Amino acid sequence: MQPVSIGLLGLGTVGAEVARLVEDRNGPFATRAGREVVLKKVAVRDRLKSRGLALPIDVLSTDPIAVAADPAVDIVVELMGGIEPARTAVLAALEAGKDVVTANKALLAEHGAELFAAARRSGRAVAFEGAVGGGIPIINTIGVGLAANRFKAMAAILNGTCNFILSSMARSGLSYAEALRQAQRLGYAEADPTLDVDGTDTAHKLAILAQLAFGASVTTSMIPKQGIDTLQSADIQYAAELGYTVKLLAVARDHGDAGLELRVAPRLVRKGSPLAEVSGPDNAIRTVGDPVGSTLISGQGAGAGPTASAVLGDLIDVIVGRAALTARSLALWPEAAPPPRLCSPKDVRGRAYLRFSIADRPGVLGSIAQVLGRHNVSIASVIQHDPGEDDQPDAPVPLVMMTHVASEADLDAALDAIDRLLVVSPPSVRLGVED
Amino acid sequence: MQPVSIGLLGLGTVGAEVARLVEDRNGPFATRAGREVVLKKVAVRDRLKSRGLALPIDVLSTDPIAVAADPAVDIVVELMGGIEPARTAVLAALEAGKDVVTANKALLAEHGAELFAAARRSGRAVAFEGAVGGGIPIINTIGVGLAANRFKAMAAILNGTCNFILSSMARSGLSYAEALRQAQRLGYAEADPTLDVDGTDTAHKLAILAQLAFGASVTTSMIPKQGIDTLQSADIQYAAELGYTVKLLAVARDHGDAGLELRVAPRLVRKGSPLAEVSGPDNAIRTVGDPVGSTLISGQGAGAGPTASAVLGDLIDVIVGRAALTARSLALWPEAAPPPRLCSPKDVRGRAYLRFSIADRPGVLGSIAQVLGRHNVSIASVIQHDPGEDDQPDAPVPLVMMTHVASEADLDAALDAIDRLLVVSPPSVRLGVED
Ligand SMILES: NC(=O)c1ccc[n+]([C@@H]2O[C@H](COP(=O)([O-])OP(=O)(O)OC[C@H]3O[C@@H](n4cnc5c(N)ncnc54)[C@H](OP(=O)(O)O)[C@@H]3O)[C@@H](O)[C@H]2O)c1
Ligand SMILES: NC(=O)c1ccc[n+]([C@@H]2O[C@H](COP(=O)([O-])OP(=O)(O)OC[C@H]3O[C@@H](n4cnc5c(N)ncnc54)[C@H](OP(=O)(O)O)[C@@H]3O)[C@@H](O)[C@H]2O)c1
Repeated sequence: MQPVSIGLLGLGTVGAEVARLVEDRNGPFATRAGREVVLKKVAVRDRLKSRGLALPIDVLSTDPIAVAADPAVDIVVELMGGIEPARTAVLAALEAGKDVVTANKALLAEHGAELFAAARRSGRAVAFEGAVGGGIPIINTIGVGLAANRFKAMAAILNGTCNFILSSMARSGLSYAEALRQAQRLGYAEADPTLDVDGTDTAHKLAILAQLAFGASVTTSMIPKQGIDTLQSADIQYAAELGYTVKLLAVARDHGDAGLELRVAPRLVRKGSPLAEVSGPDNAIRTVGDPVGSTLISGQGAGAGPTASAVLGDLIDVIVGRAALTARSLALWPEAAPPPRLCSPKDVRGRAYLRFSIADRPGVLGSIAQVLGRHNVSIASVIQHDPGEDDQPDAPVPLVMMTHVASEADLDAALDAIDRLLVVSPPSVRLGVED
Repeated sequence: MQPVSIGLLGLGTVGAEVARLVEDRNGPFATRAGREVVLKKVAVRDRLKSRGLALPIDVLSTDPIAVAADPAVDIVVELMGGIEPARTAVLAALEAGKDVVTANKALLAEHGAELFAAARRSGRAVAFEGAVGGGIPIINTIGVGLAANRFKAMAAILNGTCNFILSSMARSGLSYAEALRQAQRLGYAEADPTLDVDGTDTAHKLAILAQLAFGASVTTSMIPKQGIDTLQSADIQYAAELGYTVKLLAVARDHGDAGLELRVAPRLVRKGSPLAEVSGPDNAIRTVGDPVGSTLISGQGAGAGPTASAVLGDLIDVIVGRAALTARSLALWPEAAPPPRLCSPKDVRGRAYLRFSIADRPGVLGSIAQVLGRHNVSIASVIQHDPGEDDQPDAPVPLVMMTHVASEADLDAALDAIDRLLVVSPPSVRLGVED
C-alpha cells in the first residue's frame, strides 16, 4: 500500500507535537493507522525558526493554501488557528478532494456550515476532535459512542484557562487580576487572554457541541455569554459559604417546544458534584441523554500532548475510512437547516445566587424581599454578616441570597426593579445555579 | 435501500429495551443508522411470556442458533448472557457471514480469542460496547477516541452492585450482609449475587479492557481477584478516618519490561479524587495514556436504558460500516498473540492499609513495626483507639496502619511473619492504596 501523505498547516504547540508523533513508526498511531504516514508538506509563517524537529527544509512552506491544494498531499491537518488563511486553506483542501483534520474551534463555530457544505460537495470529511475539550474525546463520544441518544442537556467546563483562574480564586482567595497574573506566569493563560476569559472560546466550543448533540446551527454570536473577567472574589467566597463552587459553564438544554437554551456563564455548582471537583486547567463535559442517562467525561482540555492525541485519533479515523462514514451518519451543519429555535428567558427556570450592595439600615432586606416576591421569586437562604467595627458607617454592606427556582424573566424584572431602589447600589450581582 | 434485518437473541432486561428502541422510527437511532432496521427474529426461552411488547408471534423463536444462522437475518444481537448457547450462536452467526453485537462480558472474557478468530476468518466484526461499563462508551473511547495513545495505567469501578454496596456501607455504617440485602431489595443486586460480589464480573470486564488497551490476551482466571464479600465495615470506617474511600477496582498498569499488573480488589482511594466520588451503582474508568494524560469517564454502568444505548450505538456502527473498519484497525485477540507477561509481586509497589488484631499489652506495636521494618515496609500513620471500658480485658484490639510505598512481595512476607506472632490473631487485613 502507498504511504499516506499529510499536509500539515501549522507547526506550533500542537502541530509540532503531531509532527513528532507521526514520525514515531512503532507507536500506537502507526499500528492503528495501519499504513505508513509521511509528512509531505508543512506550512509555517517562518521557515527559518528553529523547532527542534528534524524536517527537511524543502518540506516547509509559507503558503498554507498551496500546501492544501498540492496534489502530492492526501490529507490536510490544519493547526494554524484563526479564521484566515485557515478557512481558505481548508476549502481548498476539500475542493481538491482531500479529507481535513482541524482543531480550530473558531473556524468551525463561525464557518461550520460553509465548510461542511464544501465537504459534502466533494464527498469528504472534516474531523475536529481537537477543537473541543483538548484530549477528551468528546466529539467521538457524542457523535459515535452515544449516537443512539436523544440529548436533553449538557453542562461543560471547556476552557482550561478560566477553570484554572477560578480554582485559584476559590483556593487562595486571590482576586481575578491576581489569579490571571498567576495563570500567565505558569503558562495557563496567554499574554492576551481576552478570548478565553470573556467566554468567547467557550462559546465557540458550545456552538460546535450544540450542532453535534442537538443539530442546532448556531454561530457564536447567538449564544448569550458572560465571562469570568468581571467576577469578584467576594462572590466566589459567598458561594463557597453556601456550599457551591463557581465554574464557567457552557450550558445547553432542550426545552422541547419552547426551544433550546444555550449560554456561557459563570454558574454555581454544588460542591461534591462531579463538575465542581474539576479543578485546575482540566475540562469536563456532562451530558444527559435518553436512554443513557447522565455521563461525564473529563481530562486535559488543552496542551500539546492531549490535543495531539485528539488530532492523531482523527487522523486514524480518516485513514482507516471511519471519518467518511461518520460524516455521512451525522450530517452536521446540513444545508436546509432551519434557524435554531432558542428559548426565551421566560421558559428558563432555575435557582439564582444574588448579591446586593445595600444601605446598612433597617427595612432594606424587607423591601428587597418584597420586590422579589412581587416577581414570583422566593428566597431560600440569606447571608448578611454584621459589618465589621472598622467599616465606614455609611458604606454599603453586602446582602447575599439564594433563591428557589424562578424564571429568568422574573429574575430579570426583579433585579431591574431592585437596582432602582434608593437603598441599593447597583449593579447587583446574579449568578445562576446549575442543578 | 433494503431494510437491515436483526436477529435478536434474548428479550430480557436489555433485549426488551433494545427491541423497543429499534421500533422507534423517528428517534436518533433510526436517523443515525440511516437505513430502516427491522427485528426479523427474536430468540427467547419462553415464547408465551408476556413482555409488554407488540411483537408478531412468528418473530419469536426458542432456537437462538437457528436465528443466528437464519439467512433472513443480517446482523445478530446477542443479549442472552452466559456461555452456552451464546457462544455457539455467535460462532454460527459469524460463520454465516454476519456481524455480531453482544453485551456478554463472560463470553468475551473466556472465548474472545475463538470469537475474534472466527470473525477474522469471515471478515466480520464483533462489537461489544455494552459488555463493559453499561452506558459508558468506554470501548469506543479507548479503541477509537484515544486510539493514538499508548496506555500506561487504568483504574476502574466496573460493577454497580459492588459500588452500591460499598457506598451504603460507607454512608450508613451497614455491615456487608445488611448492605447486600438492601441492594437486593432495591434491585441493585441479584438474588444470587456471587459473580458480582466475588469480583468475577469485574475480572471479566478487566480481561476485555486489558485486551483493548494493552493487547494482553488474558482470560479471567489469570487475574488475581478479591471481592467485597469478605470486607468488614470496620475497615471502611478506618479508611474513612484516614481520608479514604474503599472501592472495588479493576487495575491495570504497564510496568514495562517487568510486565503488566492486573488485579481486581477492594482498594483505598483518596476522598475527593474522582474515583472516590463515584457513588451508588455508577461506574467509572480512569485511564492514563501517552500523549493524552489522564482521562475519566463515568456514568450508569448497568440497567436497561444505559446498556441499550451501548448496544444501539454498536448497531449503528455495524450498519454504517464503521465496526468492520474498527475491527481491522484494532485487531483484537490476534491469533499469534504471545502469552501476556504478567508482573510479579516484587515488581509492584504501592502503599497499603493494614489492620491487625492484637493482644492489648505493651510492646506489641513495637514488635509489629520491627517485622515490617525488617521487610523494608515503613509506617506512615497508625490508628490505635483506647479500648472501651466495656470491652473484655483480654479481647484483641485493632491496630490500623498506613504504610509508605513498599513492594507487594515485601508486604506479603511481612504479613506472613506478623500473622505468626503470638500476640496477633490472624488473619490480618491488608488493602492496597490506589494513588
Ligand atoms: N494549544 C492548545 O493547547 C490547543 C488546544 C486545543 C485546540 N488548539 C487549536 O489548535 C490550533 C493550533 O494551536 P497552537 O496552540 O498549536 O497554535 P500556535 O502555537 O500559535 O501555532 C500556530 C502555527 O501555525 C503557523 N501559522 C500561523 N499562521 C500562519 C500562516 N498565515 N501561514 C503559515 N503558517 C501559519 C505558525 O507558524 P510559525 O511557527 O512560523 O509562527 C505556527 O507554527 C488552533 O486552532 C487552536 O485553537 C490548541
Ligand atoms: N442487565 C444489565 O444491566 C446488563 C448490563 C450490561 C450488560 N448486560 C449483559 O447483557 C446480557 C443480557 O442481560 P439481561 O440482564 O438483559 O439478561 P436477562 O434479563 O436475564 O435476559 C436474558 C434473555 O435471554 C433469553 N434467553 C436466555 N437463555 C436462552 C436460551 N437458551 N435460548 C433462548 N433465549 C434465552 C431469556 O429468555 P426468557 O425471557 O424467555 O427467559 C431472556 O429474554 C448479558 O450478557 C448481560 O451480562 C446486562
